[in-house]
Amino acid sequence: MKHIQFENWKLLLLDQRLLPFEEKFVICNSFEDVANAIKDMVVRGAPAIGITAAYGFAMGIKDGENPEKVYKTLLNTRPTAVNLKWALDRMMKILKSGGDAERLKKEAQEIHEEDIEVNKKMGEFGASLFDKKVSVLTHCNAGALATGDYGTALGVIRSLHKKDLIEKVLVDETRPYLQGARLTAYEMVKEGIPHFVITDNTAGLLMATGEVDAVIVGADRIAKNGDTANKIGTFMLAVLANYHKIPFYVAAPISTFDTTIESGNEIVIEERGRDEVALINGKPVIPEQSQVLHYGFDITPGNLIAGFITERGVLKPPFDL
Amino acid sequence: MKHIQFENWKLLLLDQRLLPFEEKFVICNSFEDVANAIKDMVVRGAPAIGITAAYGFAMGIKDGENPEKVYKTLLNTRPTAVNLKWALDRMMKILKSGGDAERLKKEAQEIHEEDIEVNKKMGEFGASLFDKKVSVLTHCNAGALATGDYGTALGVIRSLHKKDLIEKVLVDETRPYLQGARLTAYEMVKEGIPHFVITDNTAGLLMATGEVDAVIVGADRIAKNGDTANKIGTFMLAVLANYHKIPFYVAAPISTFDTTIESGNEIVIEERGRDEVALINGKPVIPEQSQVLHYGFDITPGNLIAGFITERGVLKPPFDL
Repeated sequence: MKHIQFENWKLLLLDQRLLPFEEKFVICNSFEDVANAIKDMVVRGAPAIGITAAYGFAMGIKDGENPEKVYKTLLNTRPTAVNLKWALDRMMKILKSGGDAERLKKEAQEIHEEDIEVNKKMGEFGASLFDKKVSVLTHCNAGALATGDYGTALGVIRSLHKKDLIEKVLVDETRPYLQGARLTAYEMVKEGIPHFVITDNTAGLLMATGEVDAVIVGADRIAKNGDTANKIGTFMLAVLANYHKIPFYVAAPISTFDTTIESGNEIVIEERGRDEVALINGKPVIPEQSQVLHYGFDITPGNLIAGFITERGVLKPPFDL
Repeated sequence: MKHIQFENWKLLLLDQRLLPFEEKFVICNSFEDVANAIKDMVVRGAPAIGITAAYGFAMGIKDGENPEKVYKTLLNTRPTAVNLKWALDRMMKILKSGGDAERLKKEAQEIHEEDIEVNKKMGEFGASLFDKKVSVLTHCNAGALATGDYGTALGVIRSLHKKDLIEKVLVDETRPYLQGARLTAYEMVKEGIPHFVITDNTAGLLMATGEVDAVIVGADRIAKNGDTANKIGTFMLAVLANYHKIPFYVAAPISTFDTTIESGNEIVIEERGRDEVALINGKPVIPEQSQVLHYGFDITPGNLIAGFITERGVLKPPFDL
């Protein structure tokens, strides 16, 4: 089941907020609906956001909306992932070279299909890094649901599993939004890949006791020097992996690399609202009077990353793409 | 309000599972009730468990139960914290030297009162480590609720706050049981100490951005070489703090030191049930088909710990107490 579907100029998005307990689609009828779906995290994951925004852009133009307004509204939904800008720039270029709504729809579909192809290539390159059964720890959801399909980090895990090289996947639950517990575990169940959900606090102990052979995560933006923005907590895993001399890989398409920035210092970290931390399943878990600090991402220094698994092979910084 | 109260041979325990939303006491009428309260985490925290077990021991003897049975039942409630054994051994010694139930009750009360005194001394020693306003990160709850009163790590924070040396406390929510979000935040609210609850994934980013001046945590058992068992996730913080050259302190009474063991390798790590990870507020957060790996504690190597704040001063391993 495809989680992003475009039919008769409507965009259907599998509502990731309800997974794994309900499989229900949100129907977007306008580019504003699409922008809200991204903002409200109906869909998340850097490549998936890019694809979704591309469809949204085509819908806005079809509806006769001002292109600049459509572009900006979609761009401003989430600040950290660069794929969003990458996809919108690509759409805008088609528009400026005279492309009509039908042509834009085709471009969005191409962005979508290319992403799936790219993930499969990435999966192959990533799987070639291992020649025996491994236990892989992953964070957040860099899976089919975060991309057009197949996934980046989970794409590598899917390819490893096909080669019978997965001992087990250790799934960080990934507070506060629980993308690991809800989405990665859901994908692992669907694929029949052996896995254990762990609290984010458990990774260190499992590394110390030899239960982790590699860490593979996705990315939201990668600077020229390899500094990588990804879901909050990624940086902690990278430091821990280096302490234990466990290889730490980032799997991401070339569209996630932003070589216009030299380092992670230039990446905006999204600050999100109190409720995502303070409420779980709609019920409070902290005192009413307590404040929270809640950032969506952190930056992992490039020197902690053993390799960047891309559709062009396993790369090392500095990048000149 | 004291969270452990002994009245007319009944032990009243503030039910920490309901905090911060309900302040309700569980009434224990027998040593079995006390054992269940420890097992079910009505009360938790190494020193608090020791105190509770001491009262429970006195209750069992008063009721004419077999002392060995009382001792073993209480000892087997939780495997990691050493204070439990320490307190029960102290009670057994009194019994063996001819102490009756009244004498045992008095001993339990002394253990309780001594613990509070010890925490206050620890607070003074800990606070003397700092001479300017600091932001302190803490994990789990090493507070009044984890002890007789005042707390170990939070005791140091209380003493720092009295000297106006607390800029802010960063409270790790501490999955899966959320002792930080629920209990530490509750104590900070009660004391009016400025604090922010963060997900456990956030500590790395805040260290990298200079928001953390020191990490102070409690302990469940400390080996001769300084290896320290504490709530799962503590080890990750210690590695991160060392990476950032931020001092990482353990605050614990001498009763938490177990010099009969050379290193952390000899410490049993409690494995706990699936539901504590899989359910939050009684609702599932992972697919039914997914398994979990859930350990209650991890071991922080002694060499990552800048100092052990005790009632005898700030110590360094190897310990000869």
